[in-house]
Amino acid sequence: MNIVYLNGNYVPLGQACISPLDRGFMFGDGVYEIIGIYRGKLVSSREHLLRLQQSSKAIKLPLKVSIKHWEDIFYELIKRNRAENKNKYIYLQVTRGVDKKRTHIFPKGRVRPTVFVMLGDVHPPSYDELSKGYSAITRNDIRWSYCSVKSIALLANVLASQEAEGHGATETIFIHNNYALEGSNSNLFVVKNKVLITPPKSKRLLGGITREIILKLAKQLKISCKVRNITKQELFDVDEIWVSSAVRDIMPIIKLDNKLVGKGKVGPVWEQMQQAYQEYKVQQT
Amino acid sequence: MNIVYLNGNYVPLGQACISPLDRGFMFGDGVYEIIGIYRGKLVSSREHLLRLQQSSKAIKLPLKVSIKHWEDIFYELIKRNRAENKNKYIYLQVTRGVDKKRTHIFPKGRVRPTVFVMLGDVHPPSYDELSKGYSAITRNDIRWSYCSVKSIALLANVLASQEAEGHGATETIFIHNNYALEGSNSNLFVVKNKVLITPPKSKRLLGGITREIILKLAKQLKISCKVRNITKQELFDVDEIWVSSAVRDIMPIIKLDNKLVGKGKVGPVWEQMQQAYQEYKVQQT
Repeated sequence: MNIVYLNGNYVPLGQACISPLDRGFMFGDGVYEIIGIYRGKLVSSREHLLRLQQSSKAIKLPLKVSIKHWEDIFYELIKRNRAENKNKYIYLQVTRGVDKKRTHIFPKGRVRPTVFVMLGDVHPPSYDELSKGYSAITRNDIRWSYCSVKSIALLANVLASQEAEGHGATETIFIHNNYALEGSNSNLFVVKNKVLITPPKSKRLLGGITREIILKLAKQLKISCKVRNITKQELFDVDEIWVSSAVRDIMPIIKLDNKLVGKGKVGPVWEQMQQAYQEYKVQQT
Repeated sequence: MNIVYLNGNYVPLGQACISPLDRGFMFGDGVYEIIGIYRGKLVSSREHLLRLQQSSKAIKLPLKVSIKHWEDIFYELIKRNRAENKNKYIYLQVTRGVDKKRTHIFPKGRVRPTVFVMLGDVHPPSYDELSKGYSAITRNDIRWSYCSVKSIALLANVLASQEAEGHGATETIFIHNNYALEGSNSNLFVVKNKVLITPPKSKRLLGGITREIILKLAKQLKISCKVRNITKQELFDVDEIWVSSAVRDIMPIIKLDNKLVGKGKVGPVWEQMQQAYQEYKVQQT
């Protein structure tokens, strides 16, 4: 049975009940995080929780909960779901709570935020699968102006993901003002002449925790690395493209808009990074 | 007791239970409508329901429900909540339903959309209150690219409404590429030299039903009327500004970013339209 956490209680998912007046349901008025669990251990949970604080601050949702408090919930969920040695992920969502009526402006008086946490299954592709590579498409960025906020108002991302799915692709890479920014639920990396490049953090780009880990590992691996803008044209003239996220790790993209990326095979820098990232996860346990 | 409709059942609001896995709660993956009820009768429900069809089509959420089916639900709710002679509004929300797991792409297989309908209270300001006028602020449009879709992913609108509230104002008017588009939950009208002007429908502007009614009434009243873009500069050089919505009717704005609009009083064209709109609503009953 899937046990989830909702507002202080551990309950079976089927008994977890959200009010239709919850501002998460009516307005997408909330924030979320996804934290990898590797062999029963949280991967970079502190970094994810600090980002949660930033996101909630950005939408003026007061959230004063300690990292220890969150991690206690996560490990209790791991225990109750007998996932002590498993690979899973934590999904956590905080909304502005249940108001008495539907009105855009924040609730008057004290309204307790809704806190929901659950475990999710990961189905990481095998090395053999990853080595075959994936395809992606590019689309104009249709999202709002604050993509750096990990908000649950994700309809634009949903439509972009589905657009990729409809084209047999694994991800949509958003183009804004001719710059390639990130995927619908991943960050973007390219390799050109052995230099690893990723666009800088900005209002329009979510600073992924996995992105940070990759940058750190690149340094350790002495891979030359640049954080700078990537034009759409450049994207079609690189040796490697990867998309990264806490749930999907580092996926090599070998086809973009039906054109081959580089030689149309996964590249050597990805091979190197993939291995380092797997080792990094092992070190967390 | 507040009786609401949820997926075929009429239940007290406190018993209406949304799954945390509902895509409305996790992704803002849904659409909505608000329909005025005047003296127990629906105002322009057909137009609202046609727009619901358009919105759901735009987000690829299949919705094959007849207008009669919807209206039966609305009138049943009016009856069960003893609102036969009251002024209220219908809030209706349709989401892409409850998936088995959290994933951006649409659920595989048949997933029933979640349908939620409730009555809301209207607190229309008295004529005396309206005559005092309201204030508004302008802000850059931070929303996504498909503002013409009435989606529940409303966080940008929420933040803009709260921004107005924080400045003691009643509405935020969005500016995009130097054009004034609409409010965070209303359409925009200005009057200049006795000509009524409203921006054209576009991807970035929700075609309000009340907006359409106002345009129709303007014709009947022989008010000269133009549907064209309005620059931000122009907005500060007009005689009247109104914002319109199904719930808030037509609100005259007499102060914009702390500057007086025209003479800082409600204008004669608003007076004329306000009266015509009230008469229109009476005709619906």
